[in-house]
Amino acid sequence: MIYKGIAASEGIVMGKVFLYTKEKVQIERDTIHKGTTTVEMEKFNDALILTKEQLSNIRKKASNELDEDQAEVFDAHMMILTDPVFLEDIKKLIEEERINAAYAAEKTVNKFIDIFQNIEDDYLKDRRIDIKDVGERLIRNILGISVDSLQSLNEKVVIVAHDLTPSDTSLLDKSCVLGIATSIGGKTSHTAIMARSLEIPAVLGLGNILEKVKNDDFVILDGIEGELIIDPDENQMRVYSSKLKGYTEKRNRLQRFIDLPAVTLDGKKVGLNANIGTPEELTAVISNGGEGIGLYRTEFLYMDRTDFPDEENQFLSYKEVAEGLKGKPAIIRTLDIGGDKNIPYLNLPDEMNPFLGWRAIRICLDRPDIFRTQLRAILRASAFGKVRIMYPMISAVDEVRSANLILSEVKQELADEGINFDKDIEVGIMVETPGAAITADIIIPEVDFFSIGTNDLCQYTLAVDRINEKVSHLYQPFHPGILRLIKNVIDVSHRYGKTTGICGEIAGDPLASMILIGLGIDELSMSPSAMPTIKRIIRNVSYEQSKKVAQHALMLSETEEIINYAKESARDFLSKED
Amino acid sequence: MIYKGIAASEGIVMGKVFLYTKEKVQIERDTIHKGTTTVEMEKFNDALILTKEQLSNIRKKASNELDEDQAEVFDAHMMILTDPVFLEDIKKLIEEERINAAYAAEKTVNKFIDIFQNIEDDYLKDRRIDIKDVGERLIRNILGISVDSLQSLNEKVVIVAHDLTPSDTSLLDKSCVLGIATSIGGKTSHTAIMARSLEIPAVLGLGNILEKVKNDDFVILDGIEGELIIDPDENQMRVYSSKLKGYTEKRNRLQRFIDLPAVTLDGKKVGLNANIGTPEELTAVISNGGEGIGLYRTEFLYMDRTDFPDEENQFLSYKEVAEGLKGKPAIIRTLDIGGDKNIPYLNLPDEMNPFLGWRAIRICLDRPDIFRTQLRAILRASAFGKVRIMYPMISAVDEVRSANLILSEVKQELADEGINFDKDIEVGIMVETPGAAITADIIIPEVDFFSIGTNDLCQYTLAVDRINEKVSHLYQPFHPGILRLIKNVIDVSHRYGKTTGICGEIAGDPLASMILIGLGIDELSMSPSAMPTIKRIIRNVSYEQSKKVAQHALMLSETEEIINYAKESARDFLSKED
Repeated sequence: MIYKGIAASEGIVMGKVFLYTKEKVQIERDTIHKGTTTVEMEKFNDALILTKEQLSNIRKKASNELDEDQAEVFDAHMMILTDPVFLEDIKKLIEEERINAAYAAEKTVNKFIDIFQNIEDDYLKDRRIDIKDVGERLIRNILGISVDSLQSLNEKVVIVAHDLTPSDTSLLDKSCVLGIATSIGGKTSHTAIMARSLEIPAVLGLGNILEKVKNDDFVILDGIEGELIIDPDENQMRVYSSKLKGYTEKRNRLQRFIDLPAVTLDGKKVGLNANIGTPEELTAVISNGGEGIGLYRTEFLYMDRTDFPDEENQFLSYKEVAEGLKGKPAIIRTLDIGGDKNIPYLNLPDEMNPFLGWRAIRICLDRPDIFRTQLRAILRASAFGKVRIMYPMISAVDEVRSANLILSEVKQELADEGINFDKDIEVGIMVETPGAAITADIIIPEVDFFSIGTNDLCQYTLAVDRINEKVSHLYQPFHPGILRLIKNVIDVSHRYGKTTGICGEIAGDPLASMILIGLGIDELSMSPSAMPTIKRIIRNVSYEQSKKVAQHALMLSETEEIINYAKESARDFLSKED
Repeated sequence: MIYKGIAASEGIVMGKVFLYTKEKVQIERDTIHKGTTTVEMEKFNDALILTKEQLSNIRKKASNELDEDQAEVFDAHMMILTDPVFLEDIKKLIEEERINAAYAAEKTVNKFIDIFQNIEDDYLKDRRIDIKDVGERLIRNILGISVDSLQSLNEKVVIVAHDLTPSDTSLLDKSCVLGIATSIGGKTSHTAIMARSLEIPAVLGLGNILEKVKNDDFVILDGIEGELIIDPDENQMRVYSSKLKGYTEKRNRLQRFIDLPAVTLDGKKVGLNANIGTPEELTAVISNGGEGIGLYRTEFLYMDRTDFPDEENQFLSYKEVAEGLKGKPAIIRTLDIGGDKNIPYLNLPDEMNPFLGWRAIRICLDRPDIFRTQLRAILRASAFGKVRIMYPMISAVDEVRSANLILSEVKQELADEGINFDKDIEVGIMVETPGAAITADIIIPEVDFFSIGTNDLCQYTLAVDRINEKVSHLYQPFHPGILRLIKNVIDVSHRYGKTTGICGEIAGDPLASMILIGLGIDELSMSPSAMPTIKRIIRNVSYEQSKKVAQHALMLSETEEIINYAKESARDFLSKED
């Protein structure tokens, strides 16, 4: 059976399903007969042993791959499982009140969560998260429900889930993931971006797929067409095997562009950079011919932790990227949390519209302690390679001025301490609010470069939450208003002898390439896997021809007309295979 | 003691507090002794009688003031209270299980809510809301907690509440409300807009005020400075009495502008219109010299109901406005729900960012049945006065084209049925997304006029939820980007011989008047009470002088500079008292 979804990350894979569900288990209370308390006690004891074993395995794995302080989370879990008060409480419920083991465990877990909830001390209060996590694991083991997590995959699988959060994917063992299929999400959701940067084929927005598929089902996942085929028949196997072959050959042909420069037929250079979230992604950047990092999303450093990463911790990551690029430049974006990216220990307020709320530079300017630590770490890393700083979510020039003021103070601090850093480090902003795009001429004197975040820019300009399926048809990066804003930002930067890049999804969209080149874009930054395709386009078009395409596109009034025109203009070289 | 909040609606009042809380009552379960079941049964029976009395009073009041189908909600409530299964269930819990009356009532209410929750039929499912409402009333009566609601005020009071929802205010008896004070909300929240249009002084954003004030406390509420004074001393009484006198005299002086035209010193006419939510507000419009309605928010017609209002129902309201204006024009905005305005029977999806979600014209184009009914009603009303139609939340020209297509079909339908309407009815859009403002030139050929909704425009342009206190400092209507967008929209409309109005809060802000006049605005639409002040400014400035002010303001880079400059430019006539 074929299910259609959204093609979110290219590639075709075949393999067995790993069903990843996090839904809360519903537990019924049963009163057990006197004679059967031993049965329930055994269930509990067995589950306890199993849970400890699982934790100790994960702990071992984690200490190889993670920071020590992240791995320590699992020590905390283990301690809870050996706490005599906790264990006695459950046993008493089973033996004296004759409650079934699972319900007894749940009751005790909830009681302990409540106790910690009411503790004043913030550190201890947060222990309730550990209790909840380990409690759920214990209860699932009592019930015999699989607790396999994404961290303990031990064979190659296609993950099928409702959704994957940044926390789910941060510990993902890439080598075991053939593909990803989820019920919700679209082309620009977190999962999609992550999948593309890790080069894992993905189909999202598959609706009620969890009801259609079972663990260990054999599936074909086609991330080009956006299809998931469950239990394919012989004919389907033949068709998709041949598709897979064709796709692999095409990728191989694209490989020959990797060492060639990204220059148009008439000699205009277009910078081809990569978006990454972790230093590990550098391998894919280099192997796909990236000329640098156009966007390093530092927020992943802050996720799946119980407290902010310290300066040293951050410095090591930034240094790894700076050094790994061997002189090629890296734009490090300062913390961009809030919106759909939460970190529990920051105690973000519940917001009615998080995309219009306290996020990114807004948090950093309100919490200079967090900001300064990051700036110190970035500046220190700038002694080890070519590093540039970028502020996200700027809506007015005074935010840039405030951020630059803090930066200059931090620089002075480092200089006073005799610590090395690039004194001429370049600073830019993400242009992702309409306010910043419209007042680019006011902001440009304060910065060295612009990078347009077309995803958010589109979201705000058209007042459309791109994750909301009810209105996703209104999320239109080819809207004439977006093209005008992009043009304005590029023109302003050039008037001041500065540059503009794009790091939104449109940078890696072949349909947009000619228009963006024609508008005069200096750099395109995208997921590493998109680079060969885009480089091939750049090398096959002329700047002069692209300018005409861009001018014509700017005269059209509806998004659909623009897309159709872009398709038509690109037809020649999109059909050619080299 | 003086508490500072946000001055949301002008005026000074003194009076006693009516504390309006809707917090859920926490009920403890008590096991009662055999002998005391009669006590609990009596409590229950008394509360039942009292609840029925209250309902019957509200019902009587409601049938005078409301549509019959709205009043019928209370009949449904009454039926629940006479349902033998419902009553027996509670009695059994008290008598047989010896549970205290309040807990017993709560248990039964929850049980019935669960039952109705699981019914397939949507109509019956919604009955759970009635059960919940009447159940809460019953429980409060058992506990002896006041259930006075805003509908049954019988003396003049200052309402103090956490917040007032549109549903709270729709049944508000204006004649009994001296003033409003709330914990949350800002200048552009629903409560603020409602208060200004009803000319009720209001101070919002008072934080934990509910903990400071008791029912029946005497307070002074100063909606000019944004202060609430609880239990004022003699000196404070003297100071505020004198302030009140001064304010009253100033209002009286402004009265003499009411019949004078809104024209600048050098003869430029600026239309002065009102924003209203219900036909009842027409009185205030006329008494404050309004030249028409610049924004009739029709969504109030859809609130506090169990189903959509039918065509006849809507027609009568629109006709009342059209006729009441005696030839003056009224701009009727089509349904603008979603965002922070929900109507339960539409089953709006839970959205992560409702301001960027399924709302306004988006709903109407997806649900043409709703849209057609409203357009028919508006068109029919256009035979009884000067009516114009306005579409909200347009983000692209194709939405305007689709809406106009439906409008032309509905016109044809009416013509075929021989029903009278204004065949040349004018159609415009709210310009409230950056996308629409930037592509005004693309949209203008499709419409007769623009009206800029500066509240939402500012919200989207700067990516700031104006209700979110964490970022409210970033909500800046005087941001240079907003001024540029306003200028662009006005210039485009004039190039096509058409007009632009403003119906956002900035239209009634004296600080903005010179800039807006200087930018060439054709109409300003605001709450009726703001009109005399704005008219006085219009009559005291020249267009030429205002143009220079606007030009200078457009050259400034930070919001604060623009506000300071506006203050300085306005100083002369803002200090003069006539």
